[in-house]
Amino acid sequence: MSNRRTLPELEPDVVVPCCPPLTERTLTAAEAERTAAMFKALSDPVRLRLFSAVASAPSGEACVCDISDVGVSGPTVSHHLKKLKEAGLLASERRGTWVYYRVEPSVLAGMGRLLTGAGPA
Amino acid sequence: MSNRRTLPELEPDVVVPCCPPLTERTLTAAEAERTAAMFKALSDPVRLRLFSAVASAPSGEACVCDISDVGVSGPTVSHHLKKLKEAGLLASERRGTWVYYRVEPSVLAGMGRLLTGAGPA
Repeated sequence: MSNRRTLPELEPDVVVPCCPPLTERTLTAAEAERTAAMFKALSDPVRLRLFSAVASAPSGEACVCDISDVGVSGPTVSHHLKKLKEAGLLASERRGTWVYYRVEPSVLAGMGRLLTGAGPA
Repeated sequence: MSNRRTLPELEPDVVVPCCPPLTERTLTAAEAERTAAMFKALSDPVRLRLFSAVASAPSGEACVCDISDVGVSGPTVSHHLKKLKEAGLLASERRGTWVYYRVEPSVLAGMGRLLTGAGPA
């Protein structure tokens, strides 16, 4: 049984939470592929710092201009944000000069549920 | 402020949950290194399937002999279980012929809390 949700605005290569808690049963190969891709997006230290910078932004969103203090160049920041977006962890919106990124709360909650088996469905 | 716990039986290279929820503030470089290593351990599909096999074992633990049905060889299973142990996600105990693995619940809960900001401390 799958509890995957269809999010209409996501792009085709985007990964969304799909899978039962890891403590429920052995994941299928397909479930493991999808879930591993999300963990992979958070497995780089710089990318993880950038993700936490967006996730903790007071306004709920951040642009490259807001999070340039993690010790890497602007283009590198953009590259990592793009990877996080491709993994379905961030959504983005262009407004004027800048692209603004925000966390997909449902994705974070889904990953948390995967690990702990707790939380809203 | 760190809420890292010291788990006396873990090996020196083991990673334990250390860090505030990702929605609280930008992780420091050191926090990101530690946390990314845990996500990296779960970023391989085969390793993730094996982890879910151990995590969902009815008795709470599993040996290589129990989880040989994920389509990879016994030595490959052992290699991945070793990686998960090094990342602090599994504990192990040798009994007779076999090494038995079990999930570290506190580590899973810590990772879940990191993602959702919820759950017991």
